[in-house]
Amino acid sequence: MSESSFANVLVRRFFVVPAFEIYGGVAGLYDLGPSTTELRNNFLSMWRQHFVVAEDMLEIMCTNIVPDKVLQASGHVARFADVMVKDTKNGECFRADKLIESYLEKKLAAEGKSLDEDQQKALNSLLNSVDGASPEVIKELIQSMHVLSPSGNPLSDPFPFNLMFQTNIGPSAGSTVYLRPETAQGIFMNFKRGLEQAKQLPFAMAQVGTVFRNEISPRNSLLRVREFEQCEIEHFIDGTPDSFRHPKISTVAWCYVELFTADDQLAGLPCGKKMSIQNALDNKVLAHETMAYFIGRTYLFLLKLGLDPARLRFRQHLPKQLAHYARDCWDCDCLLSCGWTEIVGIADRSAYDLQVHSKASGVDLTCFLKYPEPREVSYNICTLKMKECAKVFKQDVNLIRSTIEAIQGEDLEVLKAELQSTGSYTLRIPGKDGEAEKDFEILPNYVQFNCDTKMLHGESIVPHVIEPSFGVGRILYSILEHSFYTRNIDEQRTVFRFKPYLVGCKAIVLPLQRNDDLLSTSSHVLERLRRSGIAAKQDATGAPIGRRYARADEIGIPFAVTIDFQTLEDGSVTIRERDSMDQIRVGSKQLSQVIANLSSGKVQWSTVYKHFPRCEATNAE
Amino acid sequence: MSESSFANVLVRRFFVVPAFEIYGGVAGLYDLGPSTTELRNNFLSMWRQHFVVAEDMLEIMCTNIVPDKVLQASGHVARFADVMVKDTKNGECFRADKLIESYLEKKLAAEGKSLDEDQQKALNSLLNSVDGASPEVIKELIQSMHVLSPSGNPLSDPFPFNLMFQTNIGPSAGSTVYLRPETAQGIFMNFKRGLEQAKQLPFAMAQVGTVFRNEISPRNSLLRVREFEQCEIEHFIDGTPDSFRHPKISTVAWCYVELFTADDQLAGLPCGKKMSIQNALDNKVLAHETMAYFIGRTYLFLLKLGLDPARLRFRQHLPKQLAHYARDCWDCDCLLSCGWTEIVGIADRSAYDLQVHSKASGVDLTCFLKYPEPREVSYNICTLKMKECAKVFKQDVNLIRSTIEAIQGEDLEVLKAELQSTGSYTLRIPGKDGEAEKDFEILPNYVQFNCDTKMLHGESIVPHVIEPSFGVGRILYSILEHSFYTRNIDEQRTVFRFKPYLVGCKAIVLPLQRNDDLLSTSSHVLERLRRSGIAAKQDATGAPIGRRYARADEIGIPFAVTIDFQTLEDGSVTIRERDSMDQIRVGSKQLSQVIANLSSGKVQWSTVYKHFPRCEATNAE
Repeated sequence: MSESSFANVLVRRFFVVPAFEIYGGVAGLYDLGPSTTELRNNFLSMWRQHFVVAEDMLEIMCTNIVPDKVLQASGHVARFADVMVKDTKNGECFRADKLIESYLEKKLAAEGKSLDEDQQKALNSLLNSVDGASPEVIKELIQSMHVLSPSGNPLSDPFPFNLMFQTNIGPSAGSTVYLRPETAQGIFMNFKRGLEQAKQLPFAMAQVGTVFRNEISPRNSLLRVREFEQCEIEHFIDGTPDSFRHPKISTVAWCYVELFTADDQLAGLPCGKKMSIQNALDNKVLAHETMAYFIGRTYLFLLKLGLDPARLRFRQHLPKQLAHYARDCWDCDCLLSCGWTEIVGIADRSAYDLQVHSKASGVDLTCFLKYPEPREVSYNICTLKMKECAKVFKQDVNLIRSTIEAIQGEDLEVLKAELQSTGSYTLRIPGKDGEAEKDFEILPNYVQFNCDTKMLHGESIVPHVIEPSFGVGRILYSILEHSFYTRNIDEQRTVFRFKPYLVGCKAIVLPLQRNDDLLSTSSHVLERLRRSGIAAKQDATGAPIGRRYARADEIGIPFAVTIDFQTLEDGSVTIRERDSMDQIRVGSKQLSQVIANLSSGKVQWSTVYKHFPRCEATNAE
Repeated sequence: MSESSFANVLVRRFFVVPAFEIYGGVAGLYDLGPSTTELRNNFLSMWRQHFVVAEDMLEIMCTNIVPDKVLQASGHVARFADVMVKDTKNGECFRADKLIESYLEKKLAAEGKSLDEDQQKALNSLLNSVDGASPEVIKELIQSMHVLSPSGNPLSDPFPFNLMFQTNIGPSAGSTVYLRPETAQGIFMNFKRGLEQAKQLPFAMAQVGTVFRNEISPRNSLLRVREFEQCEIEHFIDGTPDSFRHPKISTVAWCYVELFTADDQLAGLPCGKKMSIQNALDNKVLAHETMAYFIGRTYLFLLKLGLDPARLRFRQHLPKQLAHYARDCWDCDCLLSCGWTEIVGIADRSAYDLQVHSKASGVDLTCFLKYPEPREVSYNICTLKMKECAKVFKQDVNLIRSTIEAIQGEDLEVLKAELQSTGSYTLRIPGKDGEAEKDFEILPNYVQFNCDTKMLHGESIVPHVIEPSFGVGRILYSILEHSFYTRNIDEQRTVFRFKPYLVGCKAIVLPLQRNDDLLSTSSHVLERLRRSGIAAKQDATGAPIGRRYARADEIGIPFAVTIDFQTLEDGSVTIRERDSMDQIRVGSKQLSQVIANLSSGKVQWSTVYKHFPRCEATNAE
């Protein structure tokens, strides 16, 4: 692939352009032009079909603005940060882990061959693990390897830089809010509402939306930007061992994927192992079926988009790389010209988020989990001897009794131990309605400890959540790169081999010449296609037909419908397919149906010759 | 319509809920639940079909974050403000025009009957014109009418409050950016790129995206919120009289709409006049065909969504209400329980935006407009008499000559007049490359004035733009209100009569009882519907069938497919339609096609009895 012609066509044909270009642009902000916007709209429809509709998920839409207290509770205010270093001379800022990665990559490229296998493995292992390293680790690496800034100057001490954009809401002073760094939090906010509609676990909620991250060093076009779209799923399960199984695992068990485990990365291996999902589960490479199921579904979805399976892998996060909320995570990495890039992340967030929000908001976010059979459980209880205590505590005795009898578990052990060791326990009862709290001294002879049993029909649990999260811009960029090629016959002629069902414009209608009859017939054909629901355009510029084919190829339009002089006689047209450049002749009545079938993927181009005569390409091709 | 049951069902069935509800919510922020998100997704598909595809527009996606200089140039930093007043006792903030409107509405309601016609008209005229009034006007109104805060306290002087959210981008200090208050600016940024693809005027660009406005007093659920989605179109024309005509005007000329002109509003009339688009053009109620065309297309689109035509009107902005960039604007207002509410705005922004951005960025944003025939134009020119001047100005003479000969139009008149009146003119030439500027004294005998002619083949013009802009949340809310009703038989039973093609879930599959055979057949039917691309759900809860119908009606699912014991014998099922509650019996092989045809609107329910036997409703209904 010619990188420069790829970058050139992206801008020249208005696929992806720097935002605010006429004002010189802003780093990390890009606009999507018409062809990419169409790809994106169809991508979202396919994503909704493949995930939301097929799995009966609840898709919701939450706000971009999130109040401070929500992100305090979720841990983002304290911990959603990258480590930054500054060039001490010119003040330039860098994301420290990426700076060290690029230092190591250069070192490996320069000295790799002179190193023995163990040294290479050690460097690779370091390279694999530097992403997301702590300021302390970064500091040590910078010092030990004498890393300098790209301008050759010394670097500052590393420090965390929070990636959230902060603003104020409301008139006058307002209150602190942030732009959401992930869509997930909105789903957690609505967990109870979702459960009310779904009625039981497991169920999943989904969201498509923009997120904002004030990246320290944006780079690589759509790959590291300061705002981007995400498609996120939160799949809630009850957290029991059974709940990690998945009823549809058999539908993906056969998928053969490259899995790059944390162990393999730490061992400095350059790549993972290819195996079936079933094999990965059998060998405990994947921890459970639900994670495995989403890896399989994601893989199938990416293939449907036209990504090259040889350039996809699933890479497990190293323990140190896990986000503060995650206990396991597998990224889907896509191999691009700039290297392996995360395009999907599938995280096991356990019960972290619902737990912290329940605590911070005071709202119960548990589910009642009914046992298959009621269970008899024994428990300890401390009861007040009323005869002794009535005189001592008078009107407070009932309050004290209920308070003491509510003490359970560890707190009860503390009470017991304290009474034994010190011969006294101070019971503190908070005051009601603004009254002061009261302390009461409890002596060993006031109480007795009993063991009792009760039948439990179930318990309240905080659901666990598995989160597949898709980066829309990165996936679109991957589709662009994997679909791009140049014609063998002419390097200047570039093509995108987009799947016909993914592309926005299915057909370009071309009158052979600027002749009134051809032009009017062409407009008529265009209208007919559109009325059949086929998104089509016309190029009636009068440029040579070969030039117009090339212009359509350049933006990946899969089919060209040419109106020639025979069309004026019998209504038939030629259909040319983008990648083979082969043509068939089709009658006017069949045109819309043929294009519709080819576009939806119902009919493959390779089979159309059975039904329609192949015709010779024009000279221009 | 029972308002409380409407509000209740919106929250209870998770249509629209306050964002961050478990933390007590944030004023002006709402989340869309599953049913509304599905409506919104289908709404966007329909909007794209009706506008973008049908008119061959270029849809693009720009960023939410916009740098300061762009919004400085567009006038938003200085002028995108509402007028605010504060309660001087408790500091509460209010949007001043809305406060006065509500004061006037109360006054009219209380005293209306006792006023004569002229007094009523005067009050109505004032009510019609207070929206968007200046701080000075507001101050006068507050003083003259003694308006107090809702708590009965005196109000502060009114002052402008900018509605944009401000934040910083980049590491360390960063630069000032805003969240976009409209998507339009992103389109103007990409005008040149769009023109390159479209190749000629007229052409249109479109964008769907979120915008952010820090409303002073958010209210009425989705109607005045602090972030919302917009669908905007910028239709670029060259600004010549011919360019305001529209080739497809005949396709909407027959639309019969209520038009409420600025004049009628100022005259205190309570409503506009109903007329056809053609009539409105003939009588100059609408200024030009392009505005009229978009009004007609908008009207047709809103009808397709199921809005009640009797509750729609188009209202022209009063001159004082026009945004700083607009020279004419027609809103589509929708009558809701809280009154007439703007849901679409169609503004004539003239060449304002491209002009200010061209000036501020220094980038040429003109189009070359070729004349039908080349035009000979005469022009004046001042030439230097070289013989006289060579000696005076020496090595500077050529620079002076080229500078003088470049002076044109008004500047040339100034030069001429000054030479005549003072006998001298000072020519200032800026220094190059940091050199100081130089002044030269020009005397009358150094120059001569000539008249010359040249052939012009066209001219560079800054395109004009007509902007239809749709508020997605407001339209969705209008659909919800206009679609809501309660059954005559039982006020507790509420229904949404959503158009089947607009609703997300087309069919609910209901096994009659919790019987293993019925359940397994039901799941099978569900899977078959889904495989045919029909979004369907199942309610196998075992609640009485009538209760389950009601639950589906409550969220507007148009068709219920019931699996009963006859299904086990011959595979046939019943289909029940939501609004008529009538049922037909359909064979298993025809089911998917029948539901698909009914859902897409290809077949109307009223005609299905021709082909399928009507069957009796179950007892429960």
